[in-house]
Amino acid sequence: MAAIAAADTLDTAYDGDAWSGRLDAAFSDLFERRVSAIWVPTGTAANCLALAVLCPPFGGVLCHEEAHVQTDEGGAPEFYTHGAKLMTVPGVGAKVTPDALKAKLGTLRNDVHQVQPHALTITNATEYGLVYTPEEVAALGALCRDRGIGFHMDGARFANAVASLGCSPADVTWRAGVDALSFGFTKNGGMSAEALVFFKPNLIDETKRRRKRAGHLLSKGRYLAAQILALLEGDLWLENGRAANAAARLMAEAAGTRCVHPVQANEIFIRVTAAEAASLRTQGFDFYDWGEGEARLVTAWNHSAEDVRPLAAAIAAL
Amino acid sequence: MAAIAAADTLDTAYDGDAWSGRLDAAFSDLFERRVSAIWVPTGTAANCLALAVLCPPFGGVLCHEEAHVQTDEGGAPEFYTHGAKLMTVPGVGAKVTPDALKAKLGTLRNDVHQVQPHALTITNATEYGLVYTPEEVAALGALCRDRGIGFHMDGARFANAVASLGCSPADVTWRAGVDALSFGFTKNGGMSAEALVFFKPNLIDETKRRRKRAGHLLSKGRYLAAQILALLEGDLWLENGRAANAAARLMAEAAGTRCVHPVQANEIFIRVTAAEAASLRTQGFDFYDWGEGEARLVTAWNHSAEDVRPLAAAIAAL
Amino acid sequence: MAAIAAADTLDTAYDGDAWSGRLDAAFSDLFERRVSAIWVPTGTAANCLALAVLCPPFGGVLCHEEAHVQTDEGGAPEFYTHGAKLMTVPGVGAKVTPDALKAKLGTLRNDVHQVQPHALTITNATEYGLVYTPEEVAALGALCRDRGIGFHMDGARFANAVASLGCSPADVTWRAGVDALSFGFTKNGGMSAEALVFFKPNLIDETKRRRKRAGHLLSKGRYLAAQILALLEGDLWLENGRAANAAARLMAEAAGTRCVHPVQANEIFIRVTAAEAASLRTQGFDFYDWGEGEARLVTAWNHSAEDVRPLAAAIAAL
Amino acid sequence: MAAIAAADTLDTAYDGDAWSGRLDAAFSDLFERRVSAIWVPTGTAANCLALAVLCPPFGGVLCHEEAHVQTDEGGAPEFYTHGAKLMTVPGVGAKVTPDALKAKLGTLRNDVHQVQPHALTITNATEYGLVYTPEEVAALGALCRDRGIGFHMDGARFANAVASLGCSPADVTWRAGVDALSFGFTKNGGMSAEALVFFKPNLIDETKRRRKRAGHLLSKGRYLAAQILALLEGDLWLENGRAANAAARLMAEAAGTRCVHPVQANEIFIRVTAAEAASLRTQGFDFYDWGEGEARLVTAWNHSAEDVRPLAAAIAAL
Repeated sequence: MAAIAAADTLDTAYDGDAWSGRLDAAFSDLFERRVSAIWVPTGTAANCLALAVLCPPFGGVLCHEEAHVQTDEGGAPEFYTHGAKLMTVPGVGAKVTPDALKAKLGTLRNDVHQVQPHALTITNATEYGLVYTPEEVAALGALCRDRGIGFHMDGARFANAVASLGCSPADVTWRAGVDALSFGFTKNGGMSAEALVFFKPNLIDETKRRRKRAGHLLSKGRYLAAQILALLEGDLWLENGRAANAAARLMAEAAGTRCVHPVQANEIFIRVTAAEAASLRTQGFDFYDWGEGEARLVTAWNHSAEDVRPLAAAIAAL
Repeated sequence: MAAIAAADTLDTAYDGDAWSGRLDAAFSDLFERRVSAIWVPTGTAANCLALAVLCPPFGGVLCHEEAHVQTDEGGAPEFYTHGAKLMTVPGVGAKVTPDALKAKLGTLRNDVHQVQPHALTITNATEYGLVYTPEEVAALGALCRDRGIGFHMDGARFANAVASLGCSPADVTWRAGVDALSFGFTKNGGMSAEALVFFKPNLIDETKRRRKRAGHLLSKGRYLAAQILALLEGDLWLENGRAANAAARLMAEAAGTRCVHPVQANEIFIRVTAAEAASLRTQGFDFYDWGEGEARLVTAWNHSAEDVRPLAAAIAAL
Repeated sequence: MAAIAAADTLDTAYDGDAWSGRLDAAFSDLFERRVSAIWVPTGTAANCLALAVLCPPFGGVLCHEEAHVQTDEGGAPEFYTHGAKLMTVPGVGAKVTPDALKAKLGTLRNDVHQVQPHALTITNATEYGLVYTPEEVAALGALCRDRGIGFHMDGARFANAVASLGCSPADVTWRAGVDALSFGFTKNGGMSAEALVFFKPNLIDETKRRRKRAGHLLSKGRYLAAQILALLEGDLWLENGRAANAAARLMAEAAGTRCVHPVQANEIFIRVTAAEAASLRTQGFDFYDWGEGEARLVTAWNHSAEDVRPLAAAIAAL
Repeated sequence: MAAIAAADTLDTAYDGDAWSGRLDAAFSDLFERRVSAIWVPTGTAANCLALAVLCPPFGGVLCHEEAHVQTDEGGAPEFYTHGAKLMTVPGVGAKVTPDALKAKLGTLRNDVHQVQPHALTITNATEYGLVYTPEEVAALGALCRDRGIGFHMDGARFANAVASLGCSPADVTWRAGVDALSFGFTKNGGMSAEALVFFKPNLIDETKRRRKRAGHLLSKGRYLAAQILALLEGDLWLENGRAANAAARLMAEAAGTRCVHPVQANEIFIRVTAAEAASLRTQGFDFYDWGEGEARLVTAWNHSAEDVRPLAAAIAAL
């Protein structure tokens, strides 16, 4: 908020302002190499711009069958790519494994009757809160390189993943073969700002044109850049990610064997009966139902142990 | 060929000629109600124009996971619909059942984050040569009507299906809730001509604009219309379908328990080892491999019992 | 800023929050009838969503040849509409007249070879700061109604137009036949928020799906809604528009015969030689060059007479 | 017809047949260099596939304001390119001049707000029957090369142009900088077959995928290839073009000063009053009205002098 207020001054419109101008350098520092980065207001825009740059309209985008781009973006990938086909891969915890990817690729004939894959997108941390290690990403990256497939990482929860891994952001991205990263800030303390980072900097010009064409070039972009810079400064983004993860671990310990998936980031999926869920709600707690007999809990960047302890205790007491 | 040669005369360009002008009436007669019909040169164009008319860009098209539109049209449905999402349903023999359809619909939340289905497309006869009965189609049609979903039938092998069923073409289409039919002629004796038939005639104007926009309004369309009319005349289309089916039945009897699917139209899928397949090829027979240990045999409209008997005997002798 | 800070609290994500939920009522009050309204972060998104709803992919959008959608939105209308064709009309001061519109319509054959117009979009105030009166809009609206053409108004400077006209917002929109309005707030004191208002409320469901699909459904939409509500309250939007217009009038008086267009809103186009422009810049003033020998000056919602007097004096002194 | 009948035999489907396989060599011979060529059933498909390969969705296609792609293809270029913007250039006789092209390019700012041109398409012979010389094409080609713009020639009447010029087909295409040519056969004696020829052969793979995706990969493509090969053989295409041109010249001489444009190919535009047009029709002649006071006459590949002499005489007698 302070960062936004500080940007409440006149500057060049769109992304010609001083804040936006500092993004490339800030992300290049963070990623230990020259990168290009732009702001967009939503993760959907970040993901879909990246896919549109990596995949032609007649191509396909490999993703997990429960990936956010496949299930929860209202057809945005198809819109931005002009009808590229999402080609889904199964896997536990919304994670794409090299074996599953190879199996999918093995089903495809290389003729004009079948859509050919041009990009792979994975989510780190995944939709179920699992984290890909640098080695796991690199194994997928190697497959992509061999097949000439672009590699995108949806990092809506990138901070949680990096905080969980304790590695350099570079290790789990470009060093592992990732070409483009949607670096999420909105879920991590920002108001409405995501960064789209290209490790192939020459792709940025086309991306900027596509951003404008999609109506995502805000005239007062300095407010977005300011949020991002504020979160990058002093590694605030990482600190926020750590806080959310810590709160999640505390919840996971309380939930014990109720946990459906290992808790590696800031999401906890637990088994609860309808009666148990109702009981928790009666006690004033709010959470998502996740199909029959499951609940989804998400901790936030500003959650302290004190904040989540009551719910943790209530779950333990079920 | 004779019909085409007869059309080798000057007439109004595009679809303003005498042949094209007779399509509506010819198909209305066949279907026992007023319909609108246009020619297109390929089945892909017929299918995808229909889907584009029935489904908006932000919508979804339900289909079998092995449907031709999903696996073998090179992303054409996504192109024509401007990125509608194919939503796939599993099922034996590439057949969509009401239960499978209901199960799929049950997984969808009706919010803006999830693509909503606007159309269902089924293939009759299916990609594995199975035939939907009027009752089966009607059960799907009822589900579509309840949900406000348009209903398209890919009839690349419509002649084979109707020949197999022995019903009126009307029974298995509009009387069962079908809104649009791709009526195949190319696989059934035509050179390059398919009809797109709308049982909601008011959809035809938009379809004609989309056909032109897709480059499918041939300037000498009379040649296509002439093929279609020649095949409709005296029910030649049905006779051809019957001939292909009869040849397939003869093959199926020879293949016996090797058959993977019931043979209801003009496709036979048989189990063969690599050695057996090689042996058949050595004897001069040509067919498609269908993954590991299977072969796909397709009989044609002009196959007589004599034509297929040698192969049938060779299979029986394996 | 205060409004944004006040929205810095937890609420339902996307547009399920309390602020977003008040938009329909707030705009219905303002427009003296039931309307549907949603927020989007940019004017490009507002304009292009409206056009996508009003015009199918195979249709055309009539607009002035110098309209912002035609010249300065990077192809966004073509993206959102899936390739609808912008059909341009000439006219003084970027204004579409009924005669020019009729002339354009008169050149079109109604066959499938020519794209047919499905929507008209005008900008009020125009790109040159001219204002359409209710009567002028109504004359265009009548033409649209006769031809079954949807009517959109790009109101990036709607506040300036209404402030200039002194009429009810209803008079210059739906009472004159307008179907959808992009109501601009960003140029009028907002941070990044525009409203898309539909006078045909049933169009809003499709619009919301298209908004999500375009990545414009911000997860913390309450910040956008809060800006809009703050500007609507006590007619602050109108007050801001009046202030900018008053500043522009003051400038126009100083510029006298240098003015290229009548100054009716908050834009002033003046004739200046290169030397004169340089002289103004030497004095510390900033403005846009507008081709050879012209400059474009825009006054802002927060400009007082004191703010612009120095530049006005400098222009008068040239 | 004989060629088509000769192709009435079984062969590999789509473009795997012997006829289709000979296209590259046949066109490489004709153009004196290695080229890639594919068949499509319509000129619209040929033009729009070429533009889609040369221009990204966010780019622009320069063309004459009366070009067929702009006025008479029902929005097909926008469909195939996913919304690229046609950027029109004025000029006499539908001809793009280097000066007009430079003037248009001069109006464009190179920023993300304005669509940037990625392709130029010209029609040879033009929509008014004018022919670009190799020098004229080369002047445009040089401009394209300087700006990194792809260059397409719509050769629906390419035979008439080459017949008129008496040059090598290479001189007026790739030697002059053309990257892709729509080589028309339908207007020149074919049934429904056009060739799309790429002088940058590496573009053909993407084109083949786009052709399939557009539903233009006919399953019995041998019939199209056979037509094209028959017309190429012994330069029949050129002979047909010469015949049509000769007939047009004869008409032009009869029309004298009534001619609106120089008659360089097979189209004649003449000034006629409504009474004169009616008189010609009464005498049994058929032609297109071309706005107020003009008529458009087109001679065909199979017109002999005897065929057109009666109409020529009737015009002379007006």
